[in-house]
Amino acid sequence: MTKVAVILCGNGVYDGSEIYESVISFMALEEANINYQCFAPNIEQMHVINHLTGEVAEGESRNVLVEAARLARGNIKDLKDAKVDDYDALLVPGGFGAAKNLSNFAVKGADMQVLPEFLQFAQAMHQAGKPIGLICIAPTMAAKIFGPGVKCTVGNDAEVSAAIAAMGGEHFDCKVDQVCVDSERKLVTTPAYMVANSISEAAKGIRTTVDELLKML
Amino acid sequence: MTKVAVILCGNGVYDGSEIYESVISFMALEEANINYQCFAPNIEQMHVINHLTGEVAEGESRNVLVEAARLARGNIKDLKDAKVDDYDALLVPGGFGAAKNLSNFAVKGADMQVLPEFLQFAQAMHQAGKPIGLICIAPTMAAKIFGPGVKCTVGNDAEVSAAIAAMGGEHFDCKVDQVCVDSERKLVTTPAYMVANSISEAAKGIRTTVDELLKML
Repeated sequence: MTKVAVILCGNGVYDGSEIYESVISFMALEEANINYQCFAPNIEQMHVINHLTGEVAEGESRNVLVEAARLARGNIKDLKDAKVDDYDALLVPGGFGAAKNLSNFAVKGADMQVLPEFLQFAQAMHQAGKPIGLICIAPTMAAKIFGPGVKCTVGNDAEVSAAIAAMGGEHFDCKVDQVCVDSERKLVTTPAYMVANSISEAAKGIRTTVDELLKML
Repeated sequence: MTKVAVILCGNGVYDGSEIYESVISFMALEEANINYQCFAPNIEQMHVINHLTGEVAEGESRNVLVEAARLARGNIKDLKDAKVDDYDALLVPGGFGAAKNLSNFAVKGADMQVLPEFLQFAQAMHQAGKPIGLICIAPTMAAKIFGPGVKCTVGNDAEVSAAIAAMGGEHFDCKVDQVCVDSERKLVTTPAYMVANSISEAAKGIRTTVDELLKML
């Protein structure tokens, strides 16, 4: 039976996984009768953002796996225990956690590094020929995972797409309901809340991402 | 233009608003072209639960409004500023926060009290003839809001339905995709994650709840 590994990176748009994108991903998988297992790295968040004020919550620290567990109602595992053989595809919702916890893109831009345990898992999935979906800001990690020439989208943000190009990726502007498919590398990306103005808007692209991902199995 | 007040009580099933129920509620409202505004009380959570272990995080404290802001991408207001005249209906997703932060049902059972600022707003909405939807465990507050004889459901939990009866409510067993409508009082309730085994299951009852709520406008 098909099973998808979903990698989370906290719980909240500004310091973790984007909640709506994650829940829509789960729903799209469920509705396609696809099992999934959530994972997150067992590390401290880069920081905690007070989502009411948008400011850093000074002195606070939270664990990525523990916070991501909220999004999974406790049904989540440590990313270090994810086994490539157990999963047929990989899906990564967005949220700034993808650029703060799974990588340091938010701080380093094109000089960024990807969290080694995520990079290793994603590359191993790719090398095993399994499709990968990256949502929202997560495609900033595409060039590090797939190498130069990878085709992806984060919507139409000039600065982020320039950074993707600087890392060797090929960025394609996309609207919120569109996806970018790199058939050769089996990568599907969609802008979601990089451009979405509503949950419904984000849902369209994410549902198409899941559909395209499943077509590649 | 129709506008619904959605009351949140944190961010996470075990100590706040149930995330999936909240997001499905938002989506159902959006898809019906109904505007909504999220509110939460500006109080400390009863406690913080580590959602990975299910244990109380000793020594940690979090603010209900600040955590609920994660679920609303920052677009949320203090419940004390909610004005009855501005809204046409009230919707409360579930999660243990409804029984820990909006009331103390989790501790006191049938002897519970409802948070005064929530009780006042809910009763004022009711007295103004506006429909109310309560999801999951939130209907435990129905008898306090509407008084004796109110009809509601939390699914089929014997202990919780007995407590509702002890407070003067009339409990009707419901399946996950069903709702209980008290037409006289304009109250709609649905079990959601009191019985749901999946997001899709919870979604059915919540979507019907929103439909019924909007029919009463």
